[in-house]
Amino acid sequence: MAAKLVGNAVVGQSGGPTAVINQSLVGVILQAQKSDHIQELLGAKHGVRGIINDDYYRLKGAPVELLERIALTPSSALGSSRDKPDEEYCKKILANFKKNNVRFFFYIGGNDSADTARIVNDMATKEGYEMRCYHIPKTIDNDLRVHDHTPGYGSAAKFVASAFIGDNYDNRSLPGIKINVVMGRHAGWLTASSTLARKYENDGPHLVYVPEAPLTEDKLLADVDRVYSKLGRCIIAVSEGISVPEKNAKGHYISWAEKMSENLERDSHGNVQLSGSGALGDYIAQLITRKLRNPSGKKLRVRADTLGYLQRSFPGYISKVDAAEAREVGRLAVEYSAQAGTEGSSVYMTRVPGNEYKVTYDITPIHNVARETKDLPAEWVVDGCDISEKYLEYARPLVGELPQVGTFDELK
Amino acid sequence: MAAKLVGNAVVGQSGGPTAVINQSLVGVILQAQKSDHIQELLGAKHGVRGIINDDYYRLKGAPVELLERIALTPSSALGSSRDKPDEEYCKKILANFKKNNVRFFFYIGGNDSADTARIVNDMATKEGYEMRCYHIPKTIDNDLRVHDHTPGYGSAAKFVASAFIGDNYDNRSLPGIKINVVMGRHAGWLTASSTLARKYENDGPHLVYVPEAPLTEDKLLADVDRVYSKLGRCIIAVSEGISVPEKNAKGHYISWAEKMSENLERDSHGNVQLSGSGALGDYIAQLITRKLRNPSGKKLRVRADTLGYLQRSFPGYISKVDAAEAREVGRLAVEYSAQAGTEGSSVYMTRVPGNEYKVTYDITPIHNVARETKDLPAEWVVDGCDISEKYLEYARPLVGELPQVGTFDELK
Repeated sequence: MAAKLVGNAVVGQSGGPTAVINQSLVGVILQAQKSDHIQELLGAKHGVRGIINDDYYRLKGAPVELLERIALTPSSALGSSRDKPDEEYCKKILANFKKNNVRFFFYIGGNDSADTARIVNDMATKEGYEMRCYHIPKTIDNDLRVHDHTPGYGSAAKFVASAFIGDNYDNRSLPGIKINVVMGRHAGWLTASSTLARKYENDGPHLVYVPEAPLTEDKLLADVDRVYSKLGRCIIAVSEGISVPEKNAKGHYISWAEKMSENLERDSHGNVQLSGSGALGDYIAQLITRKLRNPSGKKLRVRADTLGYLQRSFPGYISKVDAAEAREVGRLAVEYSAQAGTEGSSVYMTRVPGNEYKVTYDITPIHNVARETKDLPAEWVVDGCDISEKYLEYARPLVGELPQVGTFDELK
Repeated sequence: MAAKLVGNAVVGQSGGPTAVINQSLVGVILQAQKSDHIQELLGAKHGVRGIINDDYYRLKGAPVELLERIALTPSSALGSSRDKPDEEYCKKILANFKKNNVRFFFYIGGNDSADTARIVNDMATKEGYEMRCYHIPKTIDNDLRVHDHTPGYGSAAKFVASAFIGDNYDNRSLPGIKINVVMGRHAGWLTASSTLARKYENDGPHLVYVPEAPLTEDKLLADVDRVYSKLGRCIIAVSEGISVPEKNAKGHYISWAEKMSENLERDSHGNVQLSGSGALGDYIAQLITRKLRNPSGKKLRVRADTLGYLQRSFPGYISKVDAAEAREVGRLAVEYSAQAGTEGSSVYMTRVPGNEYKVTYDITPIHNVARETKDLPAEWVVDGCDISEKYLEYARPLVGELPQVGTFDELK
């Protein structure tokens, strides 16, 4: 029987923040504090960058009171990084691990971070350095393959759904056309969560556009015209990555944003460029203002908001299920790490069929998760401008309870 | 002794929504249901527009269960209006009141709505029609004179402060320059609330710009350069109404937004105009990107968000003090209306000096509140780019508890 693997561990966080990414981190730390196969737990400052710079927090003795406060703090408490390590970079990572006798590596992040953990794991195996690397999932984009859903998504979806609840009442009160741009460059998962906001008939969002369903300006205008003619108002949920029905050299649909910058090159002769974070929403608002009129011939009241970073970092308003699951995937990664043969894997959730929401946890080889992403199921996108009820069943338990609301229409 | 005034009452809501404007409405309704001087309580649909269209909900019998849900619902449950009634419009209002034997009018809104209640009250007096009109304050802008603060502000400030807490951790995790544009066309009250987000040294926002302190592009760039050189990151809170040190014909400072559109007229030859809701933030981001470089000579990571409508309508995340006070000003207006001589007034709060937060309620003639607004005290604006600690003392009790946070810097 081989001797038990004992040594130091490194934990890191990567990519864009979420509201519960520190829950996973605290799950790792608390479990490592209890585990005798982990001697010191090093927290890499700013992800892989902290590793190659040998810049760590020492976490084995971190006090629980502080950890529980950090668990409630949004965004990566260790600091994050946008670096995408190549072969050369990963060699430096492994060199640092050897130097520090690091035998366990826990990397919390999306599909790119998963790939980093995989490369380091494979490299260590090849060089005969015994170590175990794990990917711990987080992404508000909810686009990891194999995973039923990813920690971070439920809280972001709760924020977006609540934003649309508020905006629906704002818009009922002062009717007009309102566009809200939601995060999601490649997949429409987060934009879909806007549909959780609906309670009464005719509640918004009335139109929902996701990258998976290419959209022409003409279709958008026809959709808005149809809704506005019927209701006298219209709330539109738009993914930042919505696409046109035209593919680039790589075979991917071209986004509205790319198309807009192309057009701008032609149109603008000044310094000012329509290229900021508010640009897509403002562009759609201007398109509607230019092309549609209300029945009396007057200009429409059109306004756009871009929900922005709040979606991934708003504090004090998280999904409880999301927070608990985020902690558990972190804890489990450390538990698995005591066992030979579990390395090079990602901790994922599977939903147990049945009326009550329940998940089971397991591990899958990282290459099943890394790099490629997962779109919304095609059959969940309805008429290119709405999301099916199937999505609601999927998402409700992840988001939890939403604010109670009421209207005087109930008096009827 | 004159006979007791008995008749019907109208309640209406006006202007932009808040998260607690329905608390005031429910305060009015519950008190009216208990009051025998009010026979029927009519809820005007979409403010003054509902009155002249004779379009009302009948509220005296509205069930408490529904009312309590509506109290938690953001935005005006009766519907709102942007109409600013002139003399002619007010005549129609009074005609409708006479027709419906309306003897009490409760109007929930900002300074413009206060003025409407005042005109109708004066008109009724002049025509010898006995009636009593009241203004019930609401505005996230917090800019009503006489009022220590206004219902709606505490919840909006809690949202903004929390948004900056989240963004501060986002920015610590992935450093760069971040601009957040906050509501407030004329006064910086809401933008000031961003400073409630600070807990540790070097927490953002690092720069705060309000309309009351005119700002040049050169000062902005020098401020950002100073902060970024020191911290390697910079979070900027900007009121949507920030001004340049240049006055218009009316003697008011010209806003950056006005200045931008002037410049655009000159610069742009295409259809696309930088005039949407995201425009100010994107403009500042582009200004910084164009003019500043990081020490290594590389482009800075600059990004802008515009917090948008969420500030006034996000549900499920209100200030408890704000909700309770909003309900109380509504309730009191109805209580006052049983008393002759109280008409034509606005219900306001005064803060009781002392260590514990406490307010008293009273009424003041509407003309003290209507039309003109209240700026941030000049001495609370520090160096044209920050807000004094005095503001924190003022605002903390209105906002209540903010999310708990922690960082590993505490390990040192």
